[in-house]
Amino acid sequence: MSEIHWTQTEQEISRSAFDRAYQREIQALMQDVAERANQVSEVSDLWQFHDFLSARRHEIDGKYDYRDSVLIFVFAQLVREKWLDLNELKGLAADKLAKISALVRMG
Amino acid sequence: MSEIHWTQTEQEISRSAFDRAYQREIQALMQDVAERANQVSEVSDLWQFHDFLSARRHEIDGKYDYRDSVLIFVFAQLVREKWLDLNELKGLAADKLAKISALVRMG
Repeated sequence: MSEIHWTQTEQEISRSAFDRAYQREIQALMQDVAERANQVSEVSDLWQFHDFLSARRHEIDGKYDYRDSVLIFVFAQLVREKWLDLNELKGLAADKLAKISALVRMG
Repeated sequence: MSEIHWTQTEQEISRSAFDRAYQREIQALMQDVAERANQVSEVSDLWQFHDFLSARRHEIDGKYDYRDSVLIFVFAQLVREKWLDLNELKGLAADKLAKISALVRMG
């Protein structure tokens, strides 16, 4: 997988799809954070809220990895999690799309 | 300092003052958190908010140390930071109160 070549056009499509998924997930997280912050009424809620945010940040930091060698897997995960639609990757070479689709089905 | 003796009555006064200061600081933090959560509108805000909460949690965890050997210092800090009033420690032996007052003035 690490030797997949990405054309200039594919790089633009990828970057744009990647950034869009990230923005969507962050927007959803910000909304979730605002709601959870409003529900904090005890010390234990406060620390649970902090634990939640720490875990989400760690997960997001790990997931949004733009290295060529892992991008196919990242896209498959983002599609599986509904942060990205397969249609938004239109323009990538057919073999890449096929790999991503196969990984989505396997997930 | 580690060999200071605390009578039963002193222990009750201490515990109650300690818990009250903790509750006050946590209440203030919860209010702060709710306000800051409402102001998050970008990714960078979100991670800054998380950093803020991580730092406050770490600070509070370290500060509220109920070991006899450090309690005088803890009370001095809490008084200095206005989470506790010296009057709330009334009933402790005069030498303890004098030490706490001296530490407050030094802070």
